[in-house]
Amino acid sequence: MAGNSTRPGQPVTARALALLSAFDVAHPRLTLSEMAQRAGLPLATAHRLAAELAAWRALDRDDEGGYRIGLRLWEVGLLAPVSSRLRETALPFLQELYESSRENVHLAVRDGFDALYVEKLSGHRSVPIVSRIGTRLPLHPTGVGKALLAHADPALVRAYCERPLPRFTRYTIAERGRLLRELELTRERGHAQTNEEMSLGSCSVAVPILQADGTPVAALGLVVHSTRAELPKLVPPLRAAATGIARRLAETGGDAFRPVERQT
Amino acid sequence: MAGNSTRPGQPVTARALALLSAFDVAHPRLTLSEMAQRAGLPLATAHRLAAELAAWRALDRDDEGGYRIGLRLWEVGLLAPVSSRLRETALPFLQELYESSRENVHLAVRDGFDALYVEKLSGHRSVPIVSRIGTRLPLHPTGVGKALLAHADPALVRAYCERPLPRFTRYTIAERGRLLRELELTRERGHAQTNEEMSLGSCSVAVPILQADGTPVAALGLVVHSTRAELPKLVPPLRAAATGIARRLAETGGDAFRPVERQT
Repeated sequence: MAGNSTRPGQPVTARALALLSAFDVAHPRLTLSEMAQRAGLPLATAHRLAAELAAWRALDRDDEGGYRIGLRLWEVGLLAPVSSRLRETALPFLQELYESSRENVHLAVRDGFDALYVEKLSGHRSVPIVSRIGTRLPLHPTGVGKALLAHADPALVRAYCERPLPRFTRYTIAERGRLLRELELTRERGHAQTNEEMSLGSCSVAVPILQADGTPVAALGLVVHSTRAELPKLVPPLRAAATGIARRLAETGGDAFRPVERQT
Repeated sequence: MAGNSTRPGQPVTARALALLSAFDVAHPRLTLSEMAQRAGLPLATAHRLAAELAAWRALDRDDEGGYRIGLRLWEVGLLAPVSSRLRETALPFLQELYESSRENVHLAVRDGFDALYVEKLSGHRSVPIVSRIGTRLPLHPTGVGKALLAHADPALVRAYCERPLPRFTRYTIAERGRLLRELELTRERGHAQTNEEMSLGSCSVAVPILQADGTPVAALGLVVHSTRAELPKLVPPLRAAATGIARRLAETGGDAFRPVERQT
């Protein structure tokens, strides 16, 4: 990350970005020394770069000297297609799904081997769940993840299944053969289901949002209490919403989201 | 921005941030030369920095060589308190407001002299309006803006009124004295109203979300068709939601949002 003094510009940008990378959901507020340590930078370097990032409002400081991700970084981030195109186009459809179901409504994309949650609508009465916007979860134990994986390139599915499949509950499908059969079933019936595979007490149903060429741009899911689950009933409105979103995206043109495959 | 070669680190970070600043709502996709031009950087510098930003996924490239704000920048931006604290806490309350009204529901903060929209929920039947997440609008012609301005520090109100007040429709209150009386009325009755002051055909009602010390952390508003407006009816549920959000924020502690005054 740092080093490489023969190209004097590069390390500085990389170091500034390393400071931003020091923040995550578990660490939304850091002191300067925590930032420096997590970014692997000398304190003086971190101090100087943090001041520059704060001047632009990529970081904001609080009264106690802590740093948080800044308002302007949030604002610029909203311009990413996943937010400005996909999320904005999908939102009215998510609203309608929420209104008709009063359950957790999820919109997720695949990023590498993760399901990345782009939007989540839920009310006070929805089952409490782990995901929030920006959450990353594995593909195999989540409804949206299974819908995305089932429609992904076969090479990606193979690569996914070659890695260890973590088990979250005793119901998680963590065996390669079972998962492959599950994905085939998902493709055949056109929707994914999970039954307490991520969290005990909740199950989910999800459908892909398919582009004209059959590739999934995102997936749309509902997560409900397993005790009040009538999953098949939830499929038709989900499917109608997915079709509506796909059509709106096609009409308005341009990339909504495109997975970038990472070396992991 | 650039220059100052005696501090070799600084200009590089500033230049990289200038590349990100080249993007806005009207320019969500830029070619390299557009980025360089808008950032005021030589093409070679822009090329090198864009590659570094793309490696971190602060920028993502499309097949045609265009750049967009990248997925990771969006993801990191979500950690800003305005999203991770304020928006997440408020969302279930916004949902309930949307369900009971089926109108546009807005959550906004004051940033300098702007109302900055942090969340907007709307369905297919809501009146189409100009705001989206991340939109900035002036304070005086918007419901949420008026609610925020009415409870702002008197020095800020004076500074706001000393600048020209742009007029958006023939109903915009763009005279200093009238605006000050309107703000007083807003404080007295505890909610703000607008009547076609931003857009013809729509009006709004809004309340501040007040912290224990009386300072507004945000404002909550509904924007409705002026023809079907029964604004007074909308106030009690809005107020209940604002109180609920304020209480949840107080319970969960820490900054949700704090305006940073900028020199403008």
